Amino acid sequence: MASPVAFVAPSFPPSELTLTSLGRVRAAGVRAGIKPSGNPDVGLLAFDAPVAVAGIFTQNLFAAAPVAISRAHLAKTGGRARAIVVNSGNANACPGARGDDDARALSARAAQALGCPIEEVLVCSTGVIGVHLPIDRVLAGIDAAAAALSPEVEAGRAFLAAIQTTDAFPKEASARAGEASFAGVCKGAGMIHPDMATMLAFVGTDLELSPEELRGAIGPLARESFNAVHVDTHPSTNDTFLLFATGRAGAPRDDYRAPLASVARRLAWLIARDGEGATKVTTLEVRGASSDGAARAICDRIAESALVRTALYGNDPNWGRFVSQVGNAREVRSVDGLRCTLQGVVVFEDGGPTAFDRAAASKAMAAEDVSLVIELRDGEGRATLMTSDLGYRYVEVNAEYTT
Amino acid sequence: MASPVAFVAPSFPPSELTLTSLGRVRAAGVRAGIKPSGNPDVGLLAFDAPVAVAGIFTQNLFAAAPVAISRAHLAKTGGRARAIVVNSGNANACPGARGDDDARALSARAAQALGCPIEEVLVCSTGVIGVHLPIDRVLAGIDAAAAALSPEVEAGRAFLAAIQTTDAFPKEASARAGEASFAGVCKGAGMIHPDMATMLAFVGTDLELSPEELRGAIGPLARESFNAVHVDTHPSTNDTFLLFATGRAGAPRDDYRAPLASVARRLAWLIARDGEGATKVTTLEVRGASSDGAARAICDRIAESALVRTALYGNDPNWGRFVSQVGNAREVRSVDGLRCTLQGVVVFEDGGPTAFDRAAASKAMAAEDVSLVIELRDGEGRATLMTSDLGYRYVEVNAEYTT
Repeated sequence: MASPVAFVAPSFPPSELTLTSLGRVRAAGVRAGIKPSGNPDVGLLAFDAPVAVAGIFTQNLFAAAPVAISRAHLAKTGGRARAIVVNSGNANACPGARGDDDARALSARAAQALGCPIEEVLVCSTGVIGVHLPIDRVLAGIDAAAAALSPEVEAGRAFLAAIQTTDAFPKEASARAGEASFAGVCKGAGMIHPDMATMLAFVGTDLELSPEELRGAIGPLARESFNAVHVDTHPSTNDTFLLFATGRAGAPRDDYRAPLASVARRLAWLIARDGEGATKVTTLEVRGASSDGAARAICDRIAESALVRTALYGNDPNWGRFVSQVGNAREVRSVDGLRCTLQGVVVFEDGGPTAFDRAAASKAMAAEDVSLVIELRDGEGRATLMTSDLGYRYVEVNAEYTT
Repeated sequence: MASPVAFVAPSFPPSELTLTSLGRVRAAGVRAGIKPSGNPDVGLLAFDAPVAVAGIFTQNLFAAAPVAISRAHLAKTGGRARAIVVNSGNANACPGARGDDDARALSARAAQALGCPIEEVLVCSTGVIGVHLPIDRVLAGIDAAAAALSPEVEAGRAFLAAIQTTDAFPKEASARAGEASFAGVCKGAGMIHPDMATMLAFVGTDLELSPEELRGAIGPLARESFNAVHVDTHPSTNDTFLLFATGRAGAPRDDYRAPLASVARRLAWLIARDGEGATKVTTLEVRGASSDGAARAICDRIAESALVRTALYGNDPNWGRFVSQVGNAREVRSVDGLRCTLQGVVVFEDGGPTAFDRAAASKAMAAEDVSLVIELRDGEGRATLMTSDLGYRYVEVNAEYTT
């Protein structure tokens, strides 16, 4: 089957800061020959001294070997790391028993190159699953990356390039607040095959924060960013989000959660925007649910519907598809008084659609950002979710690029 | 955007029996002018005397007015009905307060035409939502249908034609067991817009069964047929399944559940097969889960993944997409020993993919029926689910046919 629609990848300007802008950190990205394309596929972040780190990992029972190793290392050190080593092109997931040994070998080689204990190295892999890592190439790549480490912005960007798989564009974000800097990079565009293992995100600040502070911050941060993105109802085996603090800027004097959240949310938005042929990001907001969990469940029901997502793609102000999914969420007590607002226009209230201008609403949906707000009268619960739309390109990417 | 792929609707031979074959029932289908296409849109089934009926309805909180009326009538009569009146082209869902009055008017008019109490008439509507019924046309259509009632097979087929919305083909099934006959018809092809309100199914037997017996049978029957179909993670506002027994063949001497199940399962298969551009039906089977509920949850996780459904469309033996969704189901205790069998070939066991022949597996997936079996070692739980695949035609149907 031929490609049904021309696809032009969107592009976004690089952010002001990248990870190396945070100080006390060097980066590298090299071509180790894991990817058949020959693109960069081994990245290394090395801190001048152990830094505070917190991590959130996939909940999938098929968690890949690198996830298990990184979890164990963070537990051993109490949340300190000297380095993060990443390979793309192979997820080291479901390859049978050898996976653990390979993941350990990656962190051992980086530890050797940097002269630090193995447990101070965190390891992430992303790419095809069910295939053994080409371990010699990866280890040689780690040596090359260690030799190439640099504190320059270009090195930070090389690291970002090395963690990409099927991303249509690089994803980075940054913020400043007073003296403090915040920066993050990520990869992810849906759980795409052959590069299946979706999301890796690395976010840092130059503030001095303890592992405890980072652990306290990372949960809420993920909840409203990386865990509030919906591409295809398919969490991956390798999802990893690491949050670190290099300490250069000293102890925080201002609120650091808001700028961190802005960085993480922007990265999450970029993942949704890259959602395998997505043409926009739709932000769902539910208010007035019986609890935050109920609000999130409603978001999930709306976002997981292929009918909703094709309507978003088609710029169809199809209130029936949105509203009926609210009625399908078990957590909803009553739909009396439900109001649905699309791009600022109320399209449903008092039990039926309003007399809104469909042509204008459709035009308004042809935007980079679409807003859909559902208001209930069940309580104070609220949630937000970013979702991509579903068009021909999604089918093309996921049905035709077979192995 | 132009249509990206040519779509040829599949066709299936009519079944041996249809509803009028069950005896003591007359049927009609007429053109009342509800559908802009001018296609038949009012159907009537009238029993010679009140028959035993059981019903299962949508759980959506936005249940449409006809669902509420039919529920109330069944409760009042204790499960007896003289007639079932159906209109297609308008679901009478979410039209504001007038919906209830309109639904009541439909049953009142049929009751008047047939000379029976209003509560002996069940009413179903399917089609566009959020729009008032063109009540005068519908009522005139009921009069015309009542005048056209006939016990002939052609009349049964006319009824079937009148309940269609966006169905690509008519759906009927039948079975015989000893002296007893079983027949059913349904409509449904996903919760498609503008005809949103998905599934209506009418299944009957000429056995003499009580309302209690039918109520006992309908739950398990639905569970393994209409409630075991997945098209787009989007239950509708009007879903209705009515099961009746005309009594002509007398009391049952043999098991009647098996032939009923075969009829209902075939109808459900036809709905999945019609899933908005579907090219096949994939039957998921999970065995060895901790409970039947856990097995069903795994089926749901697999079927709801757009990644899985595009892989099915693309004939991609993508074990990673199937297996990783097992790991995403919260109800799974362990994935150790998980085995995945696709079209009879084991593609995953012992924690990794087998060395199966991908080209042969892909070829085997290009079938009308695809089987995917997941075996766990958590317990004795099992479940089966039929799902459609997701291709370009789904996007075309659901993104481009805007209002």
